[in-house]
Amino acid sequence: MTQSVAQSVARMGIIGSDGRMGQAIAALLDEGEHTCAGGVGRTHDPADLAGHADVLVDFSAPDALADNLAAARGAGIPILIGTTGLSPDHHAAIDEAARTIPVLQTGNTSLGVTLLAHLVREAAARLGPDWDIEVLEMHHRMKVDAPSGTALLLGEAAAAGRNIALADATESGRDGHTGRRAPGAIGFAALRGGTVPGEHSVIFAGEDERLTFSHSAQSRAIFARGAIRAAAWLIGKAPGRYTMTDVLGL
Amino acid sequence: MTQSVAQSVARMGIIGSDGRMGQAIAALLDEGEHTCAGGVGRTHDPADLAGHADVLVDFSAPDALADNLAAARGAGIPILIGTTGLSPDHHAAIDEAARTIPVLQTGNTSLGVTLLAHLVREAAARLGPDWDIEVLEMHHRMKVDAPSGTALLLGEAAAAGRNIALADATESGRDGHTGRRAPGAIGFAALRGGTVPGEHSVIFAGEDERLTFSHSAQSRAIFARGAIRAAAWLIGKAPGRYTMTDVLGL
Amino acid sequence: MTQSVAQSVARMGIIGSDGRMGQAIAALLDEGEHTCAGGVGRTHDPADLAGHADVLVDFSAPDALADNLAAARGAGIPILIGTTGLSPDHHAAIDEAARTIPVLQTGNTSLGVTLLAHLVREAAARLGPDWDIEVLEMHHRMKVDAPSGTALLLGEAAAAGRNIALADATESGRDGHTGRRAPGAIGFAALRGGTVPGEHSVIFAGEDERLTFSHSAQSRAIFARGAIRAAAWLIGKAPGRYTMTDVLGL
Amino acid sequence: MTQSVAQSVARMGIIGSDGRMGQAIAALLDEGEHTCAGGVGRTHDPADLAGHADVLVDFSAPDALADNLAAARGAGIPILIGTTGLSPDHHAAIDEAARTIPVLQTGNTSLGVTLLAHLVREAAARLGPDWDIEVLEMHHRMKVDAPSGTALLLGEAAAAGRNIALADATESGRDGHTGRRAPGAIGFAALRGGTVPGEHSVIFAGEDERLTFSHSAQSRAIFARGAIRAAAWLIGKAPGRYTMTDVLGL
Repeated sequence: MTQSVAQSVARMGIIGSDGRMGQAIAALLDEGEHTCAGGVGRTHDPADLAGHADVLVDFSAPDALADNLAAARGAGIPILIGTTGLSPDHHAAIDEAARTIPVLQTGNTSLGVTLLAHLVREAAARLGPDWDIEVLEMHHRMKVDAPSGTALLLGEAAAAGRNIALADATESGRDGHTGRRAPGAIGFAALRGGTVPGEHSVIFAGEDERLTFSHSAQSRAIFARGAIRAAAWLIGKAPGRYTMTDVLGL
Repeated sequence: MTQSVAQSVARMGIIGSDGRMGQAIAALLDEGEHTCAGGVGRTHDPADLAGHADVLVDFSAPDALADNLAAARGAGIPILIGTTGLSPDHHAAIDEAARTIPVLQTGNTSLGVTLLAHLVREAAARLGPDWDIEVLEMHHRMKVDAPSGTALLLGEAAAAGRNIALADATESGRDGHTGRRAPGAIGFAALRGGTVPGEHSVIFAGEDERLTFSHSAQSRAIFARGAIRAAAWLIGKAPGRYTMTDVLGL
Repeated sequence: MTQSVAQSVARMGIIGSDGRMGQAIAALLDEGEHTCAGGVGRTHDPADLAGHADVLVDFSAPDALADNLAAARGAGIPILIGTTGLSPDHHAAIDEAARTIPVLQTGNTSLGVTLLAHLVREAAARLGPDWDIEVLEMHHRMKVDAPSGTALLLGEAAAAGRNIALADATESGRDGHTGRRAPGAIGFAALRGGTVPGEHSVIFAGEDERLTFSHSAQSRAIFARGAIRAAAWLIGKAPGRYTMTDVLGL
Repeated sequence: MTQSVAQSVARMGIIGSDGRMGQAIAALLDEGEHTCAGGVGRTHDPADLAGHADVLVDFSAPDALADNLAAARGAGIPILIGTTGLSPDHHAAIDEAARTIPVLQTGNTSLGVTLLAHLVREAAARLGPDWDIEVLEMHHRMKVDAPSGTALLLGEAAAAGRNIALADATESGRDGHTGRRAPGAIGFAALRGGTVPGEHSVIFAGEDERLTFSHSAQSRAIFARGAIRAAAWLIGKAPGRYTMTDVLGL
């Protein structure tokens, strides 16, 4: 995405290699500049894998987190954690590991979405509260929740730009007699249908003009691509906890 | 909109000329091919007005409907009724009047929306139930209800194309754990913000492809323009009850 | 797409099975309701294949057309021809074959695009010449021509709706001092970038309102899917030359 | 747009008050927080006007620039210059005046467009050259040139983010056999139709994903609104030459 500095081939160890994301990452590695150091299923011990990898990529499950962090620390290599549904205890364990190795935990590995969130935050900071913010997303018919995690991430970015808490401003699922739009609200709307991998728009609607910032994913491969980019970026970094915005240098 | 046959100048009598739509129609008549035969406020007697008009245009209130129909029948001229919030009794009165004069009653006088609804119906009839239908609309921050009346009109058109009842298929205001999209559902989502006069999209989302049909209003003048077109069209027609689709020759 | 009548499994013979479309069709047949009767490369004799197929699907090359038509006629089965770049002589040969077998030749097998073109034609017929028509398309960075074939197909549909010749109305590639838009023009604009499989919009821009009809392809699989649907539909039809609009029952 | 600090009422002197923008500004001042100090037509002397104004707003003509700058300097007040078609000599005169008074010259006074250009520049700087940049615009049927000035401004912002010269990268008016998209190109496409006041999109198309940043103007009032905001902002600033991005604090 950004011009990369010359980088040697990295050996990536995939934890959760039997899952959807693990498989997608392995497939991309097969045709790209980095290599797959091997993979372990969600229930296997990752210590062996860490022994011959330059970085671990974890898309397994919260239960496996402690073992995965231990494996990375044991081998002294970074770890990218894409697992979702983490508890505060999990996050404390990540913070603890980040004292000795580089760790990046994220719920969305798309670099495009990461940049979008960054720019939305900046726009929200510049545009006064008389610009109404709406977040629209569309996903395939199988998705079971709304708004999407990415829509909430974008809403958080907008709220951060305005120095407000998203929870206090959310207006979601409009239906029936809603009354006028609340001043300062951040609205959400969800479309579902077909096989759409994911589309998100953040709209700033002012008086007689509108700014719209959108991201459209053509396939889920972009998440695997971003994970590989982030994992490669982690190698050689100082111990600490990183985010996707760090990968983009934002 | 459609190529018009040569048409003489029509004198239009505006009932409800002190309202928002009445004023917009009068303003357009001042600069157009037809003329304003005068107007009466919502509380005045329309019989005089009907005496020197070729057609009545009623954007007043349901209470005034009986008098307005009587005025048109008394003068033997057509009437366009744009009043909303009509009861079954009002509709019965309209049917009764339509025995002797041409009457067109509608909640939306935009010719663009009328055409859109027609094409949505046709698309819904052609595309099987494996194409998910979603209706998206955006309006200004002052709008107090969702979905918009026009969104429902478009949903009705889609349901009619599929030979189902909209009420049985509606999926509106998604928020939280919604579960998978119900097969055959017609979804609605509402955006609110700024000063947007009105935008509507009907999305047919199939496997790996999507069809989207949209209407965007730049100002509310389009409703006045459509009303004038429809009123002019009514002149000289046989007694009966007409719709906007008749005006378009659909 | 449309509800299909009960249909037995069809054996489809793929000519040009080593090409991009041939492979995509074979892949879809492997997971679908119909079966692949086998395939022949672009340079092989299709007569054998026709002997144990219910329909031929030809995505080979113009040079092979005569042999392919002969194979279908010899076996008394229909043939779908997706080959492009045909000359008037090729079309004459197709017409000749259509006297004894069902033949469908098309440059675009997407059912969504077929429906879109049909509705665009209807919209153009209903909306007067004061609605300006623009065709916008976006494709991946490797595409070498503009406007796309599908954009031209949509422009043809709009021109047909207006009873004009597209060639007389085309306004494409605006750049520099263009002067005002010519009344009645049909405009084209092309975007190129990334890996976009194909997006098309037809815009009708009137006074203060706009209608937009769009098709978006998520992958090229839709063309294979439409070809299979059309080939299955051809089986059992009377001899004659058919189009994709016939498949949709338009 | 941004939260304004408490600001006293400013008296704005409109030069070119008989032009389209001058009239729009005067109309907005009549209903807003600031006042119109009076106006002069394009051919009148602005010195009197400057005597009882807090800031001059110049939407007249290049020929009048010298007199307008002199009037502002004579009164020791700032001047906003929205005049277009300036020569290098005009710019030199502006630089000279900016030694003693605050001057802001711009071809686009929309704050939304200003913010968009800023974010486009940032996105272009972050996304590598494998993301293709396209600029799409739509305007009413009367517009005589393409791409629009605002489209070029956005293209300049993208080029600046990439550290390239726009002139070396422009790919505009695609039509016919264009060949593959040139690596690193910035493409332009123009739609014309109806009464569209102005819509602009900058698309970043990467592998399997797309970012789109759009601005949509509902009416031309936004330019008058931005001019008033910028003029009020100029009052009390140190002498110097300012831009719209300064007004937004970017």
